[in-house]
Amino acid sequence: MQHPFEQFREKRLQGNEKLLETNNLVTKRLMSLDKQAYGDSALPKKTKELMALTASMVLRCNDCIDYHLETCVKESLTRDEIDEAIGIAILVGGSIVIPHARHAASSLDFLFAEQLES
Amino acid sequence: MQHPFEQFREKRLQGNEKLLETNNLVTKRLMSLDKQAYGDSALPKKTKELMALTASMVLRCNDCIDYHLETCVKESLTRDEIDEAIGIAILVGGSIVIPHARHAASSLDFLFAEQLES
Amino acid sequence: MQHPFEQFREKRLQGNEKLLETNNLVTKRLMSLDKQAYGDSALPKKTKELMALTASMVLRCNDCIDYHLETCVKESLTRDEIDEAIGIAILVGGSIVIPHARHAASSLDFLFAEQLES
Amino acid sequence: MQHPFEQFREKRLQGNEKLLETNNLVTKRLMSLDKQAYGDSALPKKTKELMALTASMVLRCNDCIDYHLETCVKESLTRDEIDEAIGIAILVGGSIVIPHARHAASSLDFLFAEQLES
Amino acid sequence: MQHPFEQFREKRLQGNEKLLETNNLVTKRLMSLDKQAYGDSALPKKTKELMALTASMVLRCNDCIDYHLETCVKESLTRDEIDEAIGIAILVGGSIVIPHARHAASSLDFLFAEQLES
Amino acid sequence: MQHPFEQFREKRLQGNEKLLETNNLVTKRLMSLDKQAYGDSALPKKTKELMALTASMVLRCNDCIDYHLETCVKESLTRDEIDEAIGIAILVGGSIVIPHARHAASSLDFLFAEQLES
Repeated sequence: MQHPFEQFREKRLQGNEKLLETNNLVTKRLMSLDKQAYGDSALPKKTKELMALTASMVLRCNDCIDYHLETCVKESLTRDEIDEAIGIAILVGGSIVIPHARHAASSLDFLFAEQLES
Repeated sequence: MQHPFEQFREKRLQGNEKLLETNNLVTKRLMSLDKQAYGDSALPKKTKELMALTASMVLRCNDCIDYHLETCVKESLTRDEIDEAIGIAILVGGSIVIPHARHAASSLDFLFAEQLES
Repeated sequence: MQHPFEQFREKRLQGNEKLLETNNLVTKRLMSLDKQAYGDSALPKKTKELMALTASMVLRCNDCIDYHLETCVKESLTRDEIDEAIGIAILVGGSIVIPHARHAASSLDFLFAEQLES
Repeated sequence: MQHPFEQFREKRLQGNEKLLETNNLVTKRLMSLDKQAYGDSALPKKTKELMALTASMVLRCNDCIDYHLETCVKESLTRDEIDEAIGIAILVGGSIVIPHARHAASSLDFLFAEQLES
Repeated sequence: MQHPFEQFREKRLQGNEKLLETNNLVTKRLMSLDKQAYGDSALPKKTKELMALTASMVLRCNDCIDYHLETCVKESLTRDEIDEAIGIAILVGGSIVIPHARHAASSLDFLFAEQLES
Repeated sequence: MQHPFEQFREKRLQGNEKLLETNNLVTKRLMSLDKQAYGDSALPKKTKELMALTASMVLRCNDCIDYHLETCVKESLTRDEIDEAIGIAILVGGSIVIPHARHAASSLDFLFAEQLES
């Protein structure tokens, strides 16, 4: 049986493909910009991923949180570093963010376990 | 097996019935106003449905998105026209709207397939 | 088979435990403050729960809504009183809140049925 | 020279009059419903005003905050009681609500001073 | 003395120039996309402006509201048509949108008076 | 004549003092936590300030933006680094964030000019 995080990955990939079948240029350009925006530049990719994670948490979007958690782990950020971003997000966004922090904690368990196995 | 969109339809209908069992007048009046607000008037129903779809997307409510997508398709708007609304919503609301645009693309596939069959 | 509300209760409990395994002090302090904030003080617990319910509804967080509905029922608020809070939330937050009001109505059915049984 | 709160009162009154000059029925009905919704019913007016204040704070709308603060003071709620609502709003909505809590504290100084004078 | 709407126009223009002095490519591309997105395509410019106005109102951004009101008037939409968008926005977004509807009504008075003079 | 940024500083300081005169423990603890949360820990203060800036921008709170911009400049972040955070915020939060990016650009002009003078 697939872990919820693996289901998210698959559904996200399929959804992005479907979304890109559109004739709409605005959607296409924004998705392309979204792909390029997180590379190293004035700030390292790591820092930008942490900023995007915090933004996704205060805006309370689980899919966005999961995507940026995955990239944070790939970028070798530690659990304590990622937990700092979660703390700032709960502080700025309030207790309404706590259910999303619970979701994030569960996704992180999966991602760090997966990292250990590989 | 029911398609997720059919489950949404059924759950929404049952939920609205349950919600209207309340003694609370404010809820009843708002739900009644919500039913009447989208008819033709100074603007055609089509345009108002597109506005409500865009608003539902930037506010990131999948149930509201699905409901207005269904009405947009009933009002004979084309896929390209609806995709324009999705593009504007991603532009105004940002990449945080993309997961909801993925959801919308999948609902539209169902709705246009259903339209073809009938 | 578990009712969705019972699944929520279990998942919330497990999630909070996992979240508290963090080394992050900000998260720990906010969760501890969240536990203490709703006791009787200048305002009775009842009123504070109704305020938190309304806030959760206009911010559209189903987990937060379910948690405060449960406490409202425990505090012996009646269905009509809780429905007033739902009405104010739909008025202040708009039709975008209606899907969450449908969710709340279904949770309340469960909670009042459970109360009768005990 | 007018106090900012007096300017708000005047501007709000004029704005509502202008807004009601519209031919749009949806706007008219919602504004009329907004006027009626806060009377005593299953819950006392006092409690409903506190709920609306909390909702206005977590949604971060200063005009809405000022309006409900004024009604809270008219309904003889004490400063400590209103401060409880502000505390819950900061907890639920996070540090992003603090600038609005500063605004509320300043409006409350004006409103309680005005009450003393009359 | 300048009307508040004229001050907005001037400040917006200067602000956009300043913002474009950045070396950041993401900001530059998004601002350029924002300029191109509202032209005629599958939907007429008029309809897209009404959708953007509704989105700006439910997201409660006065500067965005003013900008799209100006374009709506330039595109020869009538007051009644624009008032429809305002009505839908209040319905979808709730009474928290009313202060922004008051702001919009005042901006529209200015814009239609200006149109008459020219 | 005071620059708008200096007015913000003064008003913020006075507002925080007034807010702390409350008897409400929740407000006091959250404000105290807000003061402590940004020190060096698993992540450097710099990174946490950039995360809080991005969060403040997507939540569209000018006072919060100004406060974190000031701290970013104090922490010796460069204009290009801060502009990266602004870019990510516009991407995640959409064109609705642009008016706040204009505000931020103007505040940064003031803050870097002030830094040069000292």
